[in-house]
Amino acid sequence: MTPKAKNSFRHKLYTIIFEAETTAGKVFDVVLLLLILLSVLVVCLESIKELAIAYLPFFRSVEWSFTIIFTIEYLLRIYSTPKPKRYIFSFFGIVDFLSIIPTYLSLILVGSQYLLVIRVLRLLRIARIFKLTRFIDEGQVLSKALKASMNKIMVFIGVVLLVVVIVGSLMYVIEGEASGFTSIPKSIYWTIVTLTTVGYGDIAPATPLGQMLASCIMIMGYGIIAVPTGIVSVELARSDRETAATRVCPNCHVEGHPADANFCFNCGHMF
Amino acid sequence: MTPKAKNSFRHKLYTIIFEAETTAGKVFDVVLLLLILLSVLVVCLESIKELAIAYLPFFRSVEWSFTIIFTIEYLLRIYSTPKPKRYIFSFFGIVDFLSIIPTYLSLILVGSQYLLVIRVLRLLRIARIFKLTRFIDEGQVLSKALKASMNKIMVFIGVVLLVVVIVGSLMYVIEGEASGFTSIPKSIYWTIVTLTTVGYGDIAPATPLGQMLASCIMIMGYGIIAVPTGIVSVELARSDRETAATRVCPNCHVEGHPADANFCFNCGHMF
Amino acid sequence: MTPKAKNSFRHKLYTIIFEAETTAGKVFDVVLLLLILLSVLVVCLESIKELAIAYLPFFRSVEWSFTIIFTIEYLLRIYSTPKPKRYIFSFFGIVDFLSIIPTYLSLILVGSQYLLVIRVLRLLRIARIFKLTRFIDEGQVLSKALKASMNKIMVFIGVVLLVVVIVGSLMYVIEGEASGFTSIPKSIYWTIVTLTTVGYGDIAPATPLGQMLASCIMIMGYGIIAVPTGIVSVELARSDRETAATRVCPNCHVEGHPADANFCFNCGHMF
Amino acid sequence: MTPKAKNSFRHKLYTIIFEAETTAGKVFDVVLLLLILLSVLVVCLESIKELAIAYLPFFRSVEWSFTIIFTIEYLLRIYSTPKPKRYIFSFFGIVDFLSIIPTYLSLILVGSQYLLVIRVLRLLRIARIFKLTRFIDEGQVLSKALKASMNKIMVFIGVVLLVVVIVGSLMYVIEGEASGFTSIPKSIYWTIVTLTTVGYGDIAPATPLGQMLASCIMIMGYGIIAVPTGIVSVELARSDRETAATRVCPNCHVEGHPADANFCFNCGHMF
Repeated sequence: MTPKAKNSFRHKLYTIIFEAETTAGKVFDVVLLLLILLSVLVVCLESIKELAIAYLPFFRSVEWSFTIIFTIEYLLRIYSTPKPKRYIFSFFGIVDFLSIIPTYLSLILVGSQYLLVIRVLRLLRIARIFKLTRFIDEGQVLSKALKASMNKIMVFIGVVLLVVVIVGSLMYVIEGEASGFTSIPKSIYWTIVTLTTVGYGDIAPATPLGQMLASCIMIMGYGIIAVPTGIVSVELARSDRETAATRVCPNCHVEGHPADANFCFNCGHMF
Repeated sequence: MTPKAKNSFRHKLYTIIFEAETTAGKVFDVVLLLLILLSVLVVCLESIKELAIAYLPFFRSVEWSFTIIFTIEYLLRIYSTPKPKRYIFSFFGIVDFLSIIPTYLSLILVGSQYLLVIRVLRLLRIARIFKLTRFIDEGQVLSKALKASMNKIMVFIGVVLLVVVIVGSLMYVIEGEASGFTSIPKSIYWTIVTLTTVGYGDIAPATPLGQMLASCIMIMGYGIIAVPTGIVSVELARSDRETAATRVCPNCHVEGHPADANFCFNCGHMF
Repeated sequence: MTPKAKNSFRHKLYTIIFEAETTAGKVFDVVLLLLILLSVLVVCLESIKELAIAYLPFFRSVEWSFTIIFTIEYLLRIYSTPKPKRYIFSFFGIVDFLSIIPTYLSLILVGSQYLLVIRVLRLLRIARIFKLTRFIDEGQVLSKALKASMNKIMVFIGVVLLVVVIVGSLMYVIEGEASGFTSIPKSIYWTIVTLTTVGYGDIAPATPLGQMLASCIMIMGYGIIAVPTGIVSVELARSDRETAATRVCPNCHVEGHPADANFCFNCGHMF
Repeated sequence: MTPKAKNSFRHKLYTIIFEAETTAGKVFDVVLLLLILLSVLVVCLESIKELAIAYLPFFRSVEWSFTIIFTIEYLLRIYSTPKPKRYIFSFFGIVDFLSIIPTYLSLILVGSQYLLVIRVLRLLRIARIFKLTRFIDEGQVLSKALKASMNKIMVFIGVVLLVVVIVGSLMYVIEGEASGFTSIPKSIYWTIVTLTTVGYGDIAPATPLGQMLASCIMIMGYGIIAVPTGIVSVELARSDRETAATRVCPNCHVEGHPADANFCFNCGHMF
């Protein structure tokens, strides 16, 4: 309870909207969760031509209802938080803002209402309701491992991009327009489709030489998929090892002792 | 031999049907195995139009024969087991029930007989005949590792689903109906097809911007396939480490002796 | 030099054909290597319609020449080896036999000459020339790791096959013939194509329900590819660890001591 | 400052062109970076038919400008370096040469200007500007692990190629020309497309037998992708383990102390 929170109504609103400790706060979050899911579903359904034509007025009114509800929620959040600026420019503040703006934009720009699916990101906030701390922990382990392997993965992607540009141009020269390789950017697109083993088949080599080069790329792509996997595996194994050895010395507070340690390796304190 | 099993015929039936220790029990299981395989094969073959038309009466009679045999077996299982309720609602009890019901349903609902392939699940029961305990052990190691990594994989799939919804909508806005992205659900389907590197090619981006975004998704999908692999590898390595219990010398505390060691390889201390 | 090898010509032939220690033996192996590669190339080229028609007599004569040479070699191998039966039924003996028989068969059975590519397996024998022991070692590490993980992989493939049969039948019921799912076997084929992320696109779901189920299969396939990878990784890591600790006790010949061991853990012998 | 570098102008040029310590050197490298990116972009755009026709004179003049600038740079590099021969035959010397020659060749050979994308390799040189030593370190760890696993991967690719030739021929015999398997080389191409899970769908089996064999190949391909991944993971884990040097207590021989430990965590011995 910060001293700023003198206005008791504002503070009460804050505990309801931003926290999930009270019953009112939990109810608010569950209702919000359902509204977000429903609103995303409506956007998805509206994009189906037949439905959109048959139920146009219904979709419009539902969409505007959601937008008005979320707008009120957004304004209440700004009003109730003790640090409005910090909220507005936080990750969730921006997501909340982007979740309402496309409907207003759709008055001017036709089609922009489909961007409302950004609302799906608001679901990330819901983790809090279910006290999904376990999942958040797991998520942090994953994101920590990914961050630690970022440099290696950047180097890997950089090399892959160089390869893709050169091979794409080669395929353009070899195959030409007859097989659908109508330009170097399109050839590069094809190379990415092949190297990642997606293989749509909208463009496929037709000449023997092109098929030979394509075979080499595929075997290469098959092999190099091992690299990011290896990187992430090693990082995850490392973080796994580190969490297994995280006893703290009560004397000097140094971390990283194994579970069966008898002495602190830093100050020699006996456990 | 529980006191309930007083009715000796019922108990004998139980040992034949549910166990595989006696010769009769083994014969029963092998015959059942063959019947299950045959019945699944018949369902598969019946679905081939030309065969179904040419041999309709044959298929019908064979199917009804299998169903009647399996129905008798099901009733005998209920009769012979000391705890019928527990059997009926066990995994295998439900599978056994689902293995006979579609044929009866097909009298009312045309086409439901194809659901008879659920019989294939009954094969899981057969592991017992071959004393495939080794395989069951391996299966338990696998399922334990998968269970342990469940939380991490759920977080991973959750994030993937969020990405898929947003990217799918973006592709719908960028590509539009001309390239087959006729609605957001269809775009989401395409995004999953691409991210998992399946790449049917029934829908493929045609505009340069769409192909650029698709390329990013592919490279991303290529990278993030590393995450579940890393998770499972680490879990399997952990369970592997745990089973290979490393013995410690009580004298010098050096680790890594095999379970059947007689002396410490470091200090020569006798175990 | 076994006592059987009294006939010195026969023994000399043996050292030339079966060994690669002498100069003559090396020359023989290099010539054989080139002949095998050439003969496989000829079979491949002959299958190209335009070439086959244009140069029919040439291909026929070349093919017969190769076959006659390889037949003579095969007969000489049987003649020179001290244990003809053991050679004939060894892996290489069978491969050598299968490498010549299709040409003779092609006199009766048109098209069987394409099976001559089995000759490519004879290249495995060539490893010996280059003293590729390093590669053979690596190959043994790999095959040992694969053998050790065989049980786990069998369980994995078994479960995958059960899933594939059930999902295939479900897709047949859902999609029907309109989308190309003309029978359950074809649906099972499609499920394998999808689960393994190959995704030809020759058959693709068209109904919303089918596409939803397909999406689930893809995400599942994407996840379970982690399982065999994890299994093999752990096996390879284990065999890597074990080769690092393979000191043998000179007293009792027990293996598996670490490189810095001072005593045998079995008999207590000091190193 | 070698004694050869007496000609101060030449030496100054050397520090500007080859090094990035001085301000002038940095400016040179940044300008070069932009020129390379622009020139690759121009080559890519020129390959788009509509653009090429509309702005032909513009593209030609821009291309020639870049080529003349890079030619001058190439000549200055040869002039300023103290060891011209070593530069010319170094990796970057060859890349620099190949980056200018296609434009001159295009006067004789139409289409060769698309090979100018080789310029993209020159970007590798740019790592220096940003002092991307961290990335270079990561790159070295990766390439070291790849080199160490090269032998294993060669064995793996060798076995895959043998399998691919044999399976390809089998599919040619089974499927024949009706399904697009018009020759053995094309069948081999299809096998690679399938085994690597790319799956274009330009060629797909149509007969039941062919689809069965294809299913086997897919499941095999799905399984063996585990092999290179496992190899690289183990290599990366090994190099990771080696860098994380585990300190051993000289008193009780327990391992696993951090590099900056002062006491043994097991016996309390001071290091």
